[in-house]
Amino acid sequence: MLKLFYALNTCALASHIALEEAGARYESVRLNFANADQTKPEYLAVNPKGRVPALVTDRGIITETPAILVYIAQTHPQAKLAPLDDPFALAKMQAFNSYLCSTVHVAHAHQRRGKRWANLDASIADMQSKVQENMTACFELIEREMFAGPWVMGRDYSVADGYLYTIELWLEGDKVDIARFPKVHDHFQRMSARPAVQRVLAEERAP
Amino acid sequence: MLKLFYALNTCALASHIALEEAGARYESVRLNFANADQTKPEYLAVNPKGRVPALVTDRGIITETPAILVYIAQTHPQAKLAPLDDPFALAKMQAFNSYLCSTVHVAHAHQRRGKRWANLDASIADMQSKVQENMTACFELIEREMFAGPWVMGRDYSVADGYLYTIELWLEGDKVDIARFPKVHDHFQRMSARPAVQRVLAEERAP
Repeated sequence: MLKLFYALNTCALASHIALEEAGARYESVRLNFANADQTKPEYLAVNPKGRVPALVTDRGIITETPAILVYIAQTHPQAKLAPLDDPFALAKMQAFNSYLCSTVHVAHAHQRRGKRWANLDASIADMQSKVQENMTACFELIEREMFAGPWVMGRDYSVADGYLYTIELWLEGDKVDIARFPKVHDHFQRMSARPAVQRVLAEERAP
Repeated sequence: MLKLFYALNTCALASHIALEEAGARYESVRLNFANADQTKPEYLAVNPKGRVPALVTDRGIITETPAILVYIAQTHPQAKLAPLDDPFALAKMQAFNSYLCSTVHVAHAHQRRGKRWANLDASIADMQSKVQENMTACFELIEREMFAGPWVMGRDYSVADGYLYTIELWLEGDKVDIARFPKVHDHFQRMSARPAVQRVLAEERAP
């Protein structure tokens, strides 16, 4: 059975939603970042990067959200979570996911993870002061250029929707008003209403 | 025919190598970042993000290295550039590529693109002072945990090899001695000897 390691308020939510939408048989294991669970030897044996998500399969461990999302879609084809038979459409979905992981998530990470890239307190504060502007620019681009609607890829729901939703949830903390982006805002509300999303959030947020 | 937009010393090299290794029919268009070609209206019409690479196909434009690499592999299956028939192996390759784009490339980008994430000159200098340490940590992890050998994925060459090679080329500028990483160093030398790689570098570096 698949096993997902996640932590609250992290990008692992995207993989968690994908597993639930896929109807996968899986268990989930919550790490507590406040206890630095992700840096303990037992977890570093799972993922030497000390990050989430990590998906344990019967053949080994997969990390990195874009990789896990396509893996879940490919191994649960009946759920139709990605355009698996169309290389161009798949590439467009992957480009969207890659933008989220390498640009949008990184822009957000400068809010609380600035120590990864600088040492001085003043630099960290400077980075934090720019997060709202950068996240706004990312979502302006998504709204204007990348979001097909009603779902990310257009007519069909895909794993990219759970990934976008994951980052939409971070906007309030980054002081970005999601209502500025009508298509994204509508997407957020429809995602919040999906039963699979509600089940996952209830589990992740349970005491 | 495919058309690749690239600029010298950028991650677009990975897609360029993949096209050449695939035996693809394509043309390449060099942007001059020193002239800010990537911010001009004619290029923003191709890629609103103002970045490279961008691959123009007969169905539309694909951006983001990990997406382009899998697309090239899927549309040129005879070149065997990815484990397309094995979702787990494909996920491992995608996880490697995703680590390169979201962590290693980002660590490198704080050397010359710090203005993306901070405003003050002192912050930019602070970021720059940390690049050597961060790139070293990334390549220690690749050497120890991620590189199967003799190629990234093991016995078979894949698009991940051209992507890793692209970033290996940045190490000298980031003051990281590649010889510290024996497997990566060997990989760099074997990549440098591949005819397809030599053809691409000759073209990109031509006046």
